[in-house]
Amino acid sequence: MARKIYLAGPEVFLEDAARIADGKRAICARHGFEGRFPLDGDLDLSALTKREAGLAIFRANRRMMDGCDLIIANMTPFRGPSMDVGTAFEIGYMAGHGKPVLGYTNVTALFADRTKAFLGPDLIHRPSDGEPADANHMAVEDFDQVDNLMLESAVVEAGFEVVRTDVPADRLYRDLQGFEACVEQAAARLK
Amino acid sequence: MARKIYLAGPEVFLEDAARIADGKRAICARHGFEGRFPLDGDLDLSALTKREAGLAIFRANRRMMDGCDLIIANMTPFRGPSMDVGTAFEIGYMAGHGKPVLGYTNVTALFADRTKAFLGPDLIHRPSDGEPADANHMAVEDFDQVDNLMLESAVVEAGFEVVRTDVPADRLYRDLQGFEACVEQAAARLK
Repeated sequence: MARKIYLAGPEVFLEDAARIADGKRAICARHGFEGRFPLDGDLDLSALTKREAGLAIFRANRRMMDGCDLIIANMTPFRGPSMDVGTAFEIGYMAGHGKPVLGYTNVTALFADRTKAFLGPDLIHRPSDGEPADANHMAVEDFDQVDNLMLESAVVEAGFEVVRTDVPADRLYRDLQGFEACVEQAAARLK
Repeated sequence: MARKIYLAGPEVFLEDAARIADGKRAICARHGFEGRFPLDGDLDLSALTKREAGLAIFRANRRMMDGCDLIIANMTPFRGPSMDVGTAFEIGYMAGHGKPVLGYTNVTALFADRTKAFLGPDLIHRPSDGEPADANHMAVEDFDQVDNLMLESAVVEAGFEVVRTDVPADRLYRDLQGFEACVEQAAARLK
């Protein structure tokens, strides 16, 4: 039976998310995997409050993760210097289960550089220790990684490398080259 | 033996992080818990590259999480509309282990409203379905929750409520009222 990959990423928020899901599942199938995309839940949310609907989606996603063997996360920065926090949760959840974590980002700039650019004129060097920091004197993390150290390290610790690709701005959340490179890493190591 | 609480949050980036750690540990002790703060690792990183240091901190934090019984996460928004992604990973990791997740935020505004404010003039209503969205036509998530649904739902699913408190701007990452309320929830339910 084909191993199942949980397909995590902020593309769930795209209006054409179903099309991206089809593309990811097709790439998985070509490499002998079955891709599971969070939209696949087919939930009926119509009778629920917004909070109840959120909880129902959480449960469906968790159940889907529980049924998958590994995760490939889209770690592309999303509305700020860091990746989507829902995806970060899912990386943690799968790592907590001891399942392999792979990831890609469609922005090659490292986290420290992106954070400094995000802060702009609010970037300071703290008087106490000279560290680059924000207006709250909170340090700019710099471990030569693509995001907060818990995220890239989860991939490295699983024996993989985060795939970094620069893509045109209009394909930032749709380009699947980096995703396919992750599937190839998984196929070479996990089948 | 006192149950151990993993103390997750972006306050690790503060220059006075050790002082906040002391405050959190003292509150835990008053309620019969032992608080473990990520700085407690006492790692010697001096001979390592930045990437190696990041990985060493990841391993120390993971080991600390593995030794804790529950997590209380500071879910206050950090450099954008969402919480710190490292903390989001840690919530996921502990949830993946089936351990209780509690959390607080020092901003009471809900995620959808914060996201809209963050987007500012980039906020649109997508022609395809009328949904509030950003310039990439990616929807603004709205489940009446404090952040992405995976995060607050993890707390609710564990039987707790995210504690929301508004604090003065200069105490945004330092105020511990919400944290103490979480410890009280834990004491009432978990000891």
